[in-house]
Amino acid sequence: MAVDQAVELAAELAAGLPAGAVVTDPDVVAGLSHDQAAWAPHGRPAAVVRATCTEDVVHVVRTCLRHRVPVVARGAGTGLSGGANALDGCVVVSLERMDRVLEVNALERLAVVQPGVVNDHLRAAVAERGLWYPPDPASAPWSTIGGNVATNAGGLCCVKYGVTRDYVLQLEVVTGRGDVVRLGRRTAKGVAGYDLVGLLVGSEGTLGIVTEVTVRLRPLPAPAVTVAGFFSSVVAAGAAVRAVGEAGLVPSALELVDRHCLRAVDEWKNMGLSTEAEVVLLGRFDEPGALGEGLAEQMVACFRGAGATWAERSTDEAEAEALFAARRLAYPALERLGPVLTEDVCVPREQVPEMLARIERTAVRRDVVIANIAHAGDGNLHPLLVTPPGDEAARARAEAAFDDIIADALALGGTVTGEHGVGLLKRGGLAAELSPEVLEMHRAVKAALDPAHILNPGKVVE
Amino acid sequence: MAVDQAVELAAELAAGLPAGAVVTDPDVVAGLSHDQAAWAPHGRPAAVVRATCTEDVVHVVRTCLRHRVPVVARGAGTGLSGGANALDGCVVVSLERMDRVLEVNALERLAVVQPGVVNDHLRAAVAERGLWYPPDPASAPWSTIGGNVATNAGGLCCVKYGVTRDYVLQLEVVTGRGDVVRLGRRTAKGVAGYDLVGLLVGSEGTLGIVTEVTVRLRPLPAPAVTVAGFFSSVVAAGAAVRAVGEAGLVPSALELVDRHCLRAVDEWKNMGLSTEAEVVLLGRFDEPGALGEGLAEQMVACFRGAGATWAERSTDEAEAEALFAARRLAYPALERLGPVLTEDVCVPREQVPEMLARIERTAVRRDVVIANIAHAGDGNLHPLLVTPPGDEAARARAEAAFDDIIADALALGGTVTGEHGVGLLKRGGLAAELSPEVLEMHRAVKAALDPAHILNPGKVVE
Repeated sequence: MAVDQAVELAAELAAGLPAGAVVTDPDVVAGLSHDQAAWAPHGRPAAVVRATCTEDVVHVVRTCLRHRVPVVARGAGTGLSGGANALDGCVVVSLERMDRVLEVNALERLAVVQPGVVNDHLRAAVAERGLWYPPDPASAPWSTIGGNVATNAGGLCCVKYGVTRDYVLQLEVVTGRGDVVRLGRRTAKGVAGYDLVGLLVGSEGTLGIVTEVTVRLRPLPAPAVTVAGFFSSVVAAGAAVRAVGEAGLVPSALELVDRHCLRAVDEWKNMGLSTEAEVVLLGRFDEPGALGEGLAEQMVACFRGAGATWAERSTDEAEAEALFAARRLAYPALERLGPVLTEDVCVPREQVPEMLARIERTAVRRDVVIANIAHAGDGNLHPLLVTPPGDEAARARAEAAFDDIIADALALGGTVTGEHGVGLLKRGGLAAELSPEVLEMHRAVKAALDPAHILNPGKVVE
Repeated sequence: MAVDQAVELAAELAAGLPAGAVVTDPDVVAGLSHDQAAWAPHGRPAAVVRATCTEDVVHVVRTCLRHRVPVVARGAGTGLSGGANALDGCVVVSLERMDRVLEVNALERLAVVQPGVVNDHLRAAVAERGLWYPPDPASAPWSTIGGNVATNAGGLCCVKYGVTRDYVLQLEVVTGRGDVVRLGRRTAKGVAGYDLVGLLVGSEGTLGIVTEVTVRLRPLPAPAVTVAGFFSSVVAAGAAVRAVGEAGLVPSALELVDRHCLRAVDEWKNMGLSTEAEVVLLGRFDEPGALGEGLAEQMVACFRGAGATWAERSTDEAEAEALFAARRLAYPALERLGPVLTEDVCVPREQVPEMLARIERTAVRRDVVIANIAHAGDGNLHPLLVTPPGDEAARARAEAAFDDIIADALALGGTVTGEHGVGLLKRGGLAAELSPEVLEMHRAVKAALDPAHILNPGKVVE
């Protein structure tokens, strides 16, 4: 985009927006031009708009429609696939200032929020009423509900409680035609028309920009009982995960953290974890009282049967919290060591041991450090490919390993992305996973709902 | 369609299908030309095909594409909105013979079935492995999984366990272009592309014909504890439903059956229920042991607090089963008395008492017998409008009452269909519920996935 066109666009945007809403300062714009997928490419936007209300978003979309300029919506920018990355000459619309909790309704068990509400803030707001919003991505202290909706975010709870899509009842959306529409319903059930809410969830801003979200809530569960198991290999831990599934247990979390992550957390926070185990499995049950304790004991037995070097039900709440805190700190702890390329494959439960074994072989073959954290109970693995800063050869090897992992996941009946979304990093993987006919259905749906092709073009499908 | 065209079409169909697959006998064709929405119009198909495999369905769709003839898919024909009703000159494709359970996988907690598998048969097949398929429409002994998917069927369990869409992982679908595609995944999580599975579920055969379904399963729950409450009015029972919600209880069922239904069941099965109460509420909890019993006691307290004339936790398993059997028998018992027009509105929980009061007033104002059964815990009400056989004036009054109920549900923030689908009966209601822009989005999606407009045209959206 020529400079004078960009200036004209910024002026038209500013004319319909509150003072200060249009940001053109290059440093600020640069900071809002990409998410946390450090290795995904991004362009230079013509402008960033900090929207304060739905009408602001309508004005942005209609202005961009006139100019045939792409619009890229973003929340907190914590995405890991490049889904919010800017295109050259686009308008980035940040929804972070639309951060109000509009309603918490205990009887209907729902909340209505603006898209910029941070996940943890929503959780805190509803907890005051004895309610719970389950989806808990590790980014929950920073990521927004709008971003969670755009990526269909998961988290630790999914193994029992499902993902973001399972909790979205209604959306207010600004469409690719610049209309404001309300999709879905406030009632517990409803089949009036196609599931456009489910279609928008996970569509990464390519089918509409979400400006209000009504989420379903649950009663707050009982305090969790935690089980920890130490293993001498990721493959042994994978076998334990499989044993838990075979026993018919449905924990409220079942997480895997390997020695690379434990060491990185130790080096940062000095928690003394990595001397204890090569791999830790953390399980939780939130059934109340003796019921939860009994289930926890069954999990301990599964861990021991699969060869755990140590496995116990935690009787110390603080210790249990510390273990889960270490799990949540793994990603930032590794980032301290160098650029991290985050994988997000998901395989059938029965393939968890084999997939972990293949990842280990890939690390050796490609000479790349691959740390593993995993929502293991779901088969959703997050191999973290860590490279020394500035080492381009290592980066190339890591990218080759990234592709190997995707190929292995597909070969084992898995998917290229469990919860992070396609964005830019998984577009090749998506084309490998879906048939040409299914990709064509995606393009047809995209064209139907964004006929001018201005909503985050190039993400998800090309 | 002219007779010679119909003959040519039938011959082309037969040429690519097993012997006997094409049915043209007028009586058989007539019986397969509509569902159980007795008052919805239906046309006369050119032929019915009894498909035995996916390739049969492909042949039908491709043949119909060449002739630009509509294809209407049907399962057991137990629908209540006219979604499977034939159009003049269409081809009806019956999927009842595709009735095999292909896989039950305990570790992945999933089953793969053909669309003609009857809901109860799937439930029995997975129960042998300690697993459970929750969606339980009252039609479960007869309705097929394919039909359940087409309508996003609900049932008694939804108040705790959700609806059909919550259990569908993967679909094999014959598209409007005559392609066979596989949508979704077998893994516990996945965000690879748009949620086309969710879009197909509930689309009533207008976006594709489902030829294989992979469903998520749960472990079999503990035996349920049942609570029964008798009330002197539907409005008092509605207040009890609201009290249950306010107490934060999440039962595994919370059903309402009124005196009209109780009497009809008594007259048919002589169960002696209608002498006891004007309205019965039936609640269930499936938490094991003392936990479930404690929750049941809390529900008893809610019922009593709302004015129940009698409320107890059932200690007699046979008695509890009889009460739920009566609930399931209500619809066929009423059908014995004359044509039944079934409503399916769903309102917010807080509006259940008001909605029930408005239905009572509508019955008086329109001089129509309106029986009530309800998935009350979801706010999903099924007013049943019963008219004497052959009484056209009564039928006209019932149709006016039907429209009044829809208008009241929308005025109270509800939806025109909670679980039966739009079909033909709710097309007007859908247009009243959705904005013109949302209806246009529906049409755009329909055109994107069925460009030749041959898949069950005229259903859901026009």
